[in-house]
Amino acid sequence: MPEAASVPVERATIGDSEFDRDTTVTRRAPGVYDLDLSAGWTIISAVNGGYLLAVLGRALADALPHRDPFTISAHYLTASQPGSAVIRTDVVRTGRTLSTGQASLFQYDDEGREVERIRVLASYGDLDTLPDDVRTTAQPPAIPPLDQCFGPADGPAPISGSSAIADRLMLKLDPSTLGWALGAPSGKGEMRAWFGLADGRDADPLSLLLAVDALPPTAFEIGLSGWVPTVELTVHVRARPAPGPLRVSITTRNLAGGFLEEDAEVWDSADRLVAQSRQLARARLA
Amino acid sequence: MPEAASVPVERATIGDSEFDRDTTVTRRAPGVYDLDLSAGWTIISAVNGGYLLAVLGRALADALPHRDPFTISAHYLTASQPGSAVIRTDVVRTGRTLSTGQASLFQYDDEGREVERIRVLASYGDLDTLPDDVRTTAQPPAIPPLDQCFGPADGPAPISGSSAIADRLMLKLDPSTLGWALGAPSGKGEMRAWFGLADGRDADPLSLLLAVDALPPTAFEIGLSGWVPTVELTVHVRARPAPGPLRVSITTRNLAGGFLEEDAEVWDSADRLVAQSRQLARARLA
Repeated sequence: MPEAASVPVERATIGDSEFDRDTTVTRRAPGVYDLDLSAGWTIISAVNGGYLLAVLGRALADALPHRDPFTISAHYLTASQPGSAVIRTDVVRTGRTLSTGQASLFQYDDEGREVERIRVLASYGDLDTLPDDVRTTAQPPAIPPLDQCFGPADGPAPISGSSAIADRLMLKLDPSTLGWALGAPSGKGEMRAWFGLADGRDADPLSLLLAVDALPPTAFEIGLSGWVPTVELTVHVRARPAPGPLRVSITTRNLAGGFLEEDAEVWDSADRLVAQSRQLARARLA
Repeated sequence: MPEAASVPVERATIGDSEFDRDTTVTRRAPGVYDLDLSAGWTIISAVNGGYLLAVLGRALADALPHRDPFTISAHYLTASQPGSAVIRTDVVRTGRTLSTGQASLFQYDDEGREVERIRVLASYGDLDTLPDDVRTTAQPPAIPPLDQCFGPADGPAPISGSSAIADRLMLKLDPSTLGWALGAPSGKGEMRAWFGLADGRDADPLSLLLAVDALPPTAFEIGLSGWVPTVELTVHVRARPAPGPLRVSITTRNLAGGFLEEDAEVWDSADRLVAQSRQLARARLA
């Protein structure tokens, strides 16, 4: 990252960063967490689904005896808004190596009643206790070096409308998945990018929950316009990511019946496949 | 299927079959279903995870205003046993095209207390109302014709131990994913088979939940022996399957740290990708 000539720029660290501040939850009572959903992680007016999953993931990490999400599924029920919210957690089962919990995020309607936005079911463990036997046969994505990829500020066609999340991310897209931004979508359901946080904070298991849902929709490359709301998102976190930028590769192969799936892989700088996810999203056909 | 020379064999139908009888749930009260887990869907002594998901799926189909699982996630907490059980459901949200519900399956310990076996979160819709615009780019698996594939009864090396589920399925494995049964695993995390129910019942959205978890583990072809218990399983049901046998193709690409993922695709006789699933399972390394 470029450094100012006169003042050393300190990179944010895990625990002290925009992402950590904006995913803070405050335990008011056992299983009850107050929080404020930041307007900083929105795309147009919608709060990003991965950011929401990360907030819920942080609450569950506090509620459960194990600290790292291993497998976490979220059903998105109603649209979240920036502003106050409450998360309620239930411990489903605690075990020696895995614990399972459930969490719901609520906001308030005009009468002050709680409206459920998202419900999550997740099993947590400790990634640091896993054996380091790695027999992954998957290969990292073929993506050009970071300096040959492009972010929203680099191109001639910025995403119209306010997109606050773009200011919080270091997102550099593979030019071969950028056709949509130039009016020439490839027709292939693929999206690839280098991913990091703009303030330099390294990735951790919770920020991986953001990473899997932070790229432009594959639908754009397929040639669909408009909103592609997530119905459900399941993430497997398989290793603590190494420092440095991540590579995210997303694929859609089953656009049909008004729905599509997005499969995301997240690779770290040590070429580990640190997270895999699949979401089901509604696709409005052009 | 071969027919007896003298007596016409009637195929079971959706609603009147082994699968339907063994996934029956009886509503005792709103949100409370009594059931009996059959011993007929076990592998060695373990009740098959897909069968369990189907039972829970049936309860949710009754509890929710929409009848077809669109996306369903299950966390397997403790090992289920054949015998009596109870499912408790909660309606999370009902919408015009989608409803979301949660369900837990409990059995009883020696003191008669309920022990939770599985918790599920699912969103349901109506598959028949989906537009028939199909832009799937995925391709059916390359699997030989059914009569060139092999089931447990065909080979020289039957799975040791009682495997009641084998009697309930029409399962014919691709010879290229059968090496494990002959002491020569391929080393590749792949498993492919033609799949049906032994009594001839056609597939439906609920039996798809069984189909994604009914093949031998990819771990066998990787050369691992022993148990590969499912921690979590998420299934997307994308279309009502056409009559006739299904093709199931399962892939593992991320065996690492004592866990692996199994990605399953289910294709129907009309070449529709009717279901996609991913499970996270524990792998005991040889």
